[in-house]
Amino acid sequence: MRCEVVAIGTELLLGQILDTNSAWIGEHLAAAGIDAHFQTKVGDNQARMVQALRIALSRSEAVIVCGGLGPTQDDITREAIAEVMNVPLERDQAVVARIRSMFEARGRTMSENNKRQADVPRGAVVIPQTRGTAPGLICPVGKKVVYAVPGVPYEMQDMLERAVLPDLTARAGTRSTIVSRVLRTWGLAESALAELVGPRLDALDAAGSNPTIAFLASGIEGIKVRVTAKAEDRDAALGLLEAEEAELRAILGSYVFGVDDDTMETAVGVLLEEQCLTLGLAESMTGGLVASRLVNVAGSSAWFRGSVVSYASEVKFDVLGVPEGPVVCEEAAAAMAEGARKVLGADVGLSVTGVAGPAEQDGQPVGTAYFGIALDDDTQVVHARLFGDRERIRQYAAISLLDALRRRLLARA
Amino acid sequence: MRCEVVAIGTELLLGQILDTNSAWIGEHLAAAGIDAHFQTKVGDNQARMVQALRIALSRSEAVIVCGGLGPTQDDITREAIAEVMNVPLERDQAVVARIRSMFEARGRTMSENNKRQADVPRGAVVIPQTRGTAPGLICPVGKKVVYAVPGVPYEMQDMLERAVLPDLTARAGTRSTIVSRVLRTWGLAESALAELVGPRLDALDAAGSNPTIAFLASGIEGIKVRVTAKAEDRDAALGLLEAEEAELRAILGSYVFGVDDDTMETAVGVLLEEQCLTLGLAESMTGGLVASRLVNVAGSSAWFRGSVVSYASEVKFDVLGVPEGPVVCEEAAAAMAEGARKVLGADVGLSVTGVAGPAEQDGQPVGTAYFGIALDDDTQVVHARLFGDRERIRQYAAISLLDALRRRLLARA
Repeated sequence: MRCEVVAIGTELLLGQILDTNSAWIGEHLAAAGIDAHFQTKVGDNQARMVQALRIALSRSEAVIVCGGLGPTQDDITREAIAEVMNVPLERDQAVVARIRSMFEARGRTMSENNKRQADVPRGAVVIPQTRGTAPGLICPVGKKVVYAVPGVPYEMQDMLERAVLPDLTARAGTRSTIVSRVLRTWGLAESALAELVGPRLDALDAAGSNPTIAFLASGIEGIKVRVTAKAEDRDAALGLLEAEEAELRAILGSYVFGVDDDTMETAVGVLLEEQCLTLGLAESMTGGLVASRLVNVAGSSAWFRGSVVSYASEVKFDVLGVPEGPVVCEEAAAAMAEGARKVLGADVGLSVTGVAGPAEQDGQPVGTAYFGIALDDDTQVVHARLFGDRERIRQYAAISLLDALRRRLLARA
Repeated sequence: MRCEVVAIGTELLLGQILDTNSAWIGEHLAAAGIDAHFQTKVGDNQARMVQALRIALSRSEAVIVCGGLGPTQDDITREAIAEVMNVPLERDQAVVARIRSMFEARGRTMSENNKRQADVPRGAVVIPQTRGTAPGLICPVGKKVVYAVPGVPYEMQDMLERAVLPDLTARAGTRSTIVSRVLRTWGLAESALAELVGPRLDALDAAGSNPTIAFLASGIEGIKVRVTAKAEDRDAALGLLEAEEAELRAILGSYVFGVDDDTMETAVGVLLEEQCLTLGLAESMTGGLVASRLVNVAGSSAWFRGSVVSYASEVKFDVLGVPEGPVVCEEAAAAMAEGARKVLGADVGLSVTGVAGPAEQDGQPVGTAYFGIALDDDTQVVHARLFGDRERIRQYAAISLLDALRRRLLARA
């Protein structure tokens, strides 16, 4: 089974927005064992969309078209697919009613334009929309199929997982199942990781490359180690996967902070919950970033008290009780952590102060960071040197701070 | 003159790396007035690369192939182009010497593999490499042309600017320049925006569609309105663009919060700076998100004091002085804003409290939000109802809160 992706939008060709959808879809097709040999981007022009669809259908059994399902006049994916299918568009009144009720639920009135989103090529099946107003479409073309999904990533991803991938794998009738799992690591460069895992890679290669291992550099989120296993059924594939995960964990130890959708903040949350500790933050250089990551963890209200984002030095002195003087140093980080613990009424006080740039501060170079952890009767400070631009330094500081807490909690357990 | 981009690499199809090169090239082709109607991604497979090149050449006068010029066995762009040209590859000894000297300058020895990078299809012209070991190629195919450039962005960009774009514009002969600008809007659905702008769109269509207008839904960041103008030179194109921006601003008023790279937080920052006001936050449901956006604004330390992320109710009571009782209501939002102003020593206190979900709170449904603004002698509270999952509600709350402050500051000016 081969499936191509056709991404629609003149703004993609003009480089005004980046086509992240095709990459996301490509990753998920690969994980489902479906071959993807070509991806195409084409503008909001019906003749060229039709041409791109015909070429894709000539060499693959399925095509996923992404974008051009909005309510405006330049959203013409429906028209292009109907032309390829050689059928008329028909307005689906049930879909109109659904769009109208979505608007009404938000206290708004559906505009006339939105009714276009209910146009369906004759013979196509609607994928009900749950996140936006545009439904998706499953459009048979002879024995082949075109799927249309919205270009908004959040709507597209939902429809891919809920409707398109299940339909594709059913059509593929694949006998073998591919499963994969990602080990999330933090604290090792890709080359160092590759050296550690090298002998294991060689052993897998020699034994027939199942499972396979790949490294995915994810920038500020560390290096991902993806394990992919193939077997006749899901249980057998999962068995291979789990055995390989155990091998890799034995090699990588606490560099692994989670799997798949785990994040550094979910890892920290689990440890806090296990140890019945509440957390309060004092953030300077990260400016609220650490707090905003922690509140995204489901159930964080059980252990997260809050954060004092002390961007101005006076807020550090007046609210957190940091002694007046330099604020980028070990002493300030310790006082911030203790201040946060006290002011926010938490068991653990966690602080970060440093220099995100562009200029140095308190005689400390850009990239300097101090992480304070006030826990039990012991306040510890970790010093780090981070690299990159302002935004990158902040992001690195946030995850490094959480990693410092994770390691302290692991040692305490 | 039409030019397509073909990006080479199985890792692009698998979504392991994002194809940022095609977007960059598309942007630069548009700026040079060259039409780009299609972009294709294809894996490291010679037959499929040849097929993609032939299709691109069948509909455009020029093709830029990006990637697959490295030294390893899966770098086969040279072979694929030679097949399309129907000529042999010939090793260029001058290029070999240049690669060897690049290695020697780094104190390393050239490997045998690297000599493959000196293979040139007969009849092609070499684009000398200055940043990496791979040279680029200008390959005539009948009256058309294929350019090959490396996939490393930094090497690709250099060759595009130095050799490919000048060659392309010389071939194009007549030059026209395309410029575009994006108006950032907040507060209108795409369909409502389309209805407001509809008459203007019709007028432009009737007058020959220059400039053109397109809407780009950007999810949580509002709707972008892109204006694109074409003229013989840059000044004339910019003149058209500015006249159209004025037309649209007259229609859209304060729904427009900025242009191009402006964000809601930079818009707020400009207003605070103009009015010589400092800002302190009290964030509940957004959990630090608003603060972390504000500190990303260059120069925000001049007006941003900090934030009390009062996630636990006790933090609202103890730190911000909110009266004990329900915390998702108008009164709590007002008290939080006043508390933030006082505790953080700011001129403006800005607060947000609400229900991000998954469960309702204080009898209020998921999506409820109250925004408090304490400024001058007047504390005002705005009530909003937001939609989506937890993360989306938080993101909407953050930008809506900043928009509420922007409108208050605009009214005050």
